[in-house]
Amino acid sequence: MIRFECDYSEGAHEKIMQRLMKTNYEQTVGYSEDPYCASAREKIKAACDCPDAAVHFLVGGTQANATVIGSILRPHQGVLSAASGHINVHETGAIEALGHKVLGLPHKDGKISAQQVRDYVAAHYADGSFEHIVQPGMVYISHPTEMGTLYTLQELTELSQACRELNLPLFVDGARLGYGLAAGEVTLRDMARLADVFYIGGTKCGALFGEAVVITAKALQKDFRYHIKQRGGMLAKGRLLGLQFDTLFTDGLYEKITGNAARQALRIRAAFEKKGVKMHFDSPTNQQFPELTQAQMDALSRDFSFTYWEKAEGEYHAVRFCTSWATKDESVDQLIAAIEKL
Amino acid sequence: MIRFECDYSEGAHEKIMQRLMKTNYEQTVGYSEDPYCASAREKIKAACDCPDAAVHFLVGGTQANATVIGSILRPHQGVLSAASGHINVHETGAIEALGHKVLGLPHKDGKISAQQVRDYVAAHYADGSFEHIVQPGMVYISHPTEMGTLYTLQELTELSQACRELNLPLFVDGARLGYGLAAGEVTLRDMARLADVFYIGGTKCGALFGEAVVITAKALQKDFRYHIKQRGGMLAKGRLLGLQFDTLFTDGLYEKITGNAARQALRIRAAFEKKGVKMHFDSPTNQQFPELTQAQMDALSRDFSFTYWEKAEGEYHAVRFCTSWATKDESVDQLIAAIEKL
Amino acid sequence: MIRFECDYSEGAHEKIMQRLMKTNYEQTVGYSEDPYCASAREKIKAACDCPDAAVHFLVGGTQANATVIGSILRPHQGVLSAASGHINVHETGAIEALGHKVLGLPHKDGKISAQQVRDYVAAHYADGSFEHIVQPGMVYISHPTEMGTLYTLQELTELSQACRELNLPLFVDGARLGYGLAAGEVTLRDMARLADVFYIGGTKCGALFGEAVVITAKALQKDFRYHIKQRGGMLAKGRLLGLQFDTLFTDGLYEKITGNAARQALRIRAAFEKKGVKMHFDSPTNQQFPELTQAQMDALSRDFSFTYWEKAEGEYHAVRFCTSWATKDESVDQLIAAIEKL
Amino acid sequence: MIRFECDYSEGAHEKIMQRLMKTNYEQTVGYSEDPYCASAREKIKAACDCPDAAVHFLVGGTQANATVIGSILRPHQGVLSAASGHINVHETGAIEALGHKVLGLPHKDGKISAQQVRDYVAAHYADGSFEHIVQPGMVYISHPTEMGTLYTLQELTELSQACRELNLPLFVDGARLGYGLAAGEVTLRDMARLADVFYIGGTKCGALFGEAVVITAKALQKDFRYHIKQRGGMLAKGRLLGLQFDTLFTDGLYEKITGNAARQALRIRAAFEKKGVKMHFDSPTNQQFPELTQAQMDALSRDFSFTYWEKAEGEYHAVRFCTSWATKDESVDQLIAAIEKL
Repeated sequence: MIRFECDYSEGAHEKIMQRLMKTNYEQTVGYSEDPYCASAREKIKAACDCPDAAVHFLVGGTQANATVIGSILRPHQGVLSAASGHINVHETGAIEALGHKVLGLPHKDGKISAQQVRDYVAAHYADGSFEHIVQPGMVYISHPTEMGTLYTLQELTELSQACRELNLPLFVDGARLGYGLAAGEVTLRDMARLADVFYIGGTKCGALFGEAVVITAKALQKDFRYHIKQRGGMLAKGRLLGLQFDTLFTDGLYEKITGNAARQALRIRAAFEKKGVKMHFDSPTNQQFPELTQAQMDALSRDFSFTYWEKAEGEYHAVRFCTSWATKDESVDQLIAAIEKL
Repeated sequence: MIRFECDYSEGAHEKIMQRLMKTNYEQTVGYSEDPYCASAREKIKAACDCPDAAVHFLVGGTQANATVIGSILRPHQGVLSAASGHINVHETGAIEALGHKVLGLPHKDGKISAQQVRDYVAAHYADGSFEHIVQPGMVYISHPTEMGTLYTLQELTELSQACRELNLPLFVDGARLGYGLAAGEVTLRDMARLADVFYIGGTKCGALFGEAVVITAKALQKDFRYHIKQRGGMLAKGRLLGLQFDTLFTDGLYEKITGNAARQALRIRAAFEKKGVKMHFDSPTNQQFPELTQAQMDALSRDFSFTYWEKAEGEYHAVRFCTSWATKDESVDQLIAAIEKL
Repeated sequence: MIRFECDYSEGAHEKIMQRLMKTNYEQTVGYSEDPYCASAREKIKAACDCPDAAVHFLVGGTQANATVIGSILRPHQGVLSAASGHINVHETGAIEALGHKVLGLPHKDGKISAQQVRDYVAAHYADGSFEHIVQPGMVYISHPTEMGTLYTLQELTELSQACRELNLPLFVDGARLGYGLAAGEVTLRDMARLADVFYIGGTKCGALFGEAVVITAKALQKDFRYHIKQRGGMLAKGRLLGLQFDTLFTDGLYEKITGNAARQALRIRAAFEKKGVKMHFDSPTNQQFPELTQAQMDALSRDFSFTYWEKAEGEYHAVRFCTSWATKDESVDQLIAAIEKL
Repeated sequence: MIRFECDYSEGAHEKIMQRLMKTNYEQTVGYSEDPYCASAREKIKAACDCPDAAVHFLVGGTQANATVIGSILRPHQGVLSAASGHINVHETGAIEALGHKVLGLPHKDGKISAQQVRDYVAAHYADGSFEHIVQPGMVYISHPTEMGTLYTLQELTELSQACRELNLPLFVDGARLGYGLAAGEVTLRDMARLADVFYIGGTKCGALFGEAVVITAKALQKDFRYHIKQRGGMLAKGRLLGLQFDTLFTDGLYEKITGNAARQALRIRAAFEKKGVKMHFDSPTNQQFPELTQAQMDALSRDFSFTYWEKAEGEYHAVRFCTSWATKDESVDQLIAAIEKL
């Protein structure tokens, strides 16, 4: 069985593993105040061209989303998100557990627009009983989205402008940011310039685990470590996170390995399309969503794992194949061979 | 200006006011442990034909909704509700502030069905990653709904059956329950038999303020007074609530005065329909939703207040006229005269 | 049985009751946006000599405490309070239910000092792991305290200065503020000048129910009505609150009637002291705490209700007698006669 | 600089590191549903002699404490704990952030007794206004405590009995459980028999990170994975946790390596005592608390890191030296040599 069901099936890039081995018996201070974290912070700030950013390392995506959102919103505020957003669907209500409503917006393949944000805010204050309604307090997007799609530079710029005019911090969930950077036009520097806070996913992009939260907006930086601790995200051996991100941001490793995932994903997509299979979403990133018949699903599931997504039109079902930094040529070769036989 | 914009424009029924005056200098113990509350509890339990119910008096609707829902759900659970439900739209996220997601369902004029509840629960557990999704923990409906519509006895019976099979407590928001009882086929005894917890609205139905929460399900009765206190709803002079409900449930006063509201509402509706005005929702209760042109709205708003609801088709706008226990014949006469001149 | 167990045994001052009767059928807009609330706000702001204050009317004390504190603190912050403070002891964890720790300080008869606040804050930031500890975010005191004691003007001034230097909003719980104003040197204007937010108790001081929250600090005024609604405190018929406070702040009624309570309390105290009974706390306000033997308690409890407070030294027990705006001369005469017979 | 300031200065035991390397490119399913987690669960259940326990793997201690406590308490309940308990002091209010008060009890070197629990519960229900007070809902202890002390088997048995009689789940924070098992009379089987839920610390006892939560009480097992996900603790590559605990519970590795820490700690203690230094707490575990003069602190801090604890009597200061699974003989040799020169 070769696994394409998600992008966290393997461990970590071997450079990380080797360095973990090598530094295992070093003694460092805890809670991310060690030299590895310090070094990783500097490298990330340099890569973002944002020397005044605050960089924090958290263990996972749900934790990062909850900690960031909880640190920003006031009790009467909610977070605008695509209704399909991970925080709205797949985090067991972690945001509501902090007291905040996720204000779900209709989306286009996982994306929302600056105009939607402007309209929502205008409608809120135009309502006579606005104080009886949750106040929009920030905007959350994912890049790439749950559907693998990407914001264009113009779309992201417009969203950022709208958010700044409306005084709504813009938070970008970058659990798969590496795959977005590898496949789209938005660069890490763009992200740091346009978002107020975002995170660089490690768990799905080469690390054992870990997300690097980058807070570019000064006003959002204050006291963030208290929030990390309160939400259970202050890793005792914080150096584990620092060392991993330090490695990923040395010699362009992060871009290199996420580029592999994008390349493999497009090979898979091309194989499906050559076979006449329709893609459910137009994803340029490491998640691909072919629409298959039950017979095709059965055939492929003999040797490959993938995820059922949703019912498509007619006899078709959308499923998801993920590649990752660890996906091997030969695994994709085998999959393509199987696709050709469908 | 005659007000039809809501059903809480006036004070309280005169029998309540007189009794408040008469008992003003009596000394009683606080926190609803006084004889007036005791008497009101007995009368309500008798009216519900439910001697084992627990009856508590809270100040207002949002407080009642939050206190009840917060007392039932576990942290990982949410409450199923029509997307149009008051808790989902007009309570500034009070439920989310307690940590719980409102799981909004598509609705038909404010109502949801037993089948929707069954389907939602089945879909939840059929999802491979169900533990990543908020667990449905109870069902909330309003009777009447926000749109003035009512559940039939069969619909309510089916919902109740589904909830009991699925082990989901059924909670009925009865902010306007009196107007529902006056206009529909569901009786107070039906409600007590079919709901696990519901409240009898006082604020909109003859009292200065106050809602009587009736908990019929034994398992939900435990420790409820702690919840009331914690949520800020333990009125020091609790007798104010007891006395009001004791009065409303003496000699059928509650039914008598809510019947007036229904009668007046249907007079208004008939006048609009005679004039060829389309009703936006088919409401038999004290809220009526005519679709008016801008010119008609302007004409009526000279002497009458009413609420803008939403854009209707073409040149029309749905607006809301409310009657109440206090609505006078002559006020409705004047409104009807104005409608006839449209 | 004559009740001295609390200060909320009766209804409301007769001027309030008469005005409620008289205005009962008036139609007004809801949610405290009516003319009565507007008038009451102006009178309170004038009495406070603070034209820029924001004044809001809430139903009860626990609700007021929770709504104010929840509107101020950030998630990682707690509220400094005397360990004996009402929020720490008698509100079923309402503050913790909002996510915040009550940081209890040792107290002297219910009071805390500026120096304690300064020391606590200094110690917090001096701790190497301060981010692992709840950050002090505001200060809560009661005036009068739970023990009936009062801050002197100098003590309150010093607390206010410390709070402003440390950037900690100072919130004063004034559930019994009227009795404090009547008995101490701190005036309403002092309170408005020295506190950042406080409330003027109505429930215990002449109203049926209601507390007037006065927010003098500009930065704390923003969006407060959202918080009121979310916490269940937005009374539909808000005019009930406005009318009561408008009455209490007309022709000095509030001072007049709370002065009665202080006077009666001191009569009771004098009677006890004449009899050689020791007072547990040195209270100049409407709560008096004699230390009685079991036999004395038994004797007095035949005709009078009072509250058991705590074990005192030796064979003595501290109990509490409360007077209020409604306490009659003849009731106190009877109590004094009984005390003399002890 | 040799670090004795905490027990998480190094990485993980080399057997863990080697296995992580060896399995790095294996593909497994996520979220702790992989074979490594399954195997670790079986080994832990066997070691606990508790085949019906539920075993879950979380990343860290604060997260484990919050997730467990949040899964047990109802909104109006709090958790009884020594006032010195980690949840009450050093988790930035993580429990309060879930809505629950930590009910701090006076302690004896970090421990609380069955009698204290019984007294607290009795006093709660004896109070006339008990519904205005947070209800005690569970008991939290640490073993070892923050002061390195241990419960005797009899003390733990009595606590367990009291909790079961009072229907309060007993939760044991075992962040340093391994060091307690190595130094005291309570075994893992005792713990599984007497606690309703506890965790086996990995972060401080040989793992890179991770705590194994063992839920022995059936009633507390339901839906626990939802809670893990909601609190941000569902590690995508859950196998990392499973593999570590599987290794620690193979061939008695956990006991072996924690025994080293206890042995080294007692060597340090003996050296201090030989020098006439008083120990602040009587700890048999890996934390030792000598009372030093400023000069002694200065002398030792040249080559060794340790933690300032608190002011002791006279000119003395209590400080903390920690050993761990990774502490080397030669490091302790050097420390002892330095102690001898004091």
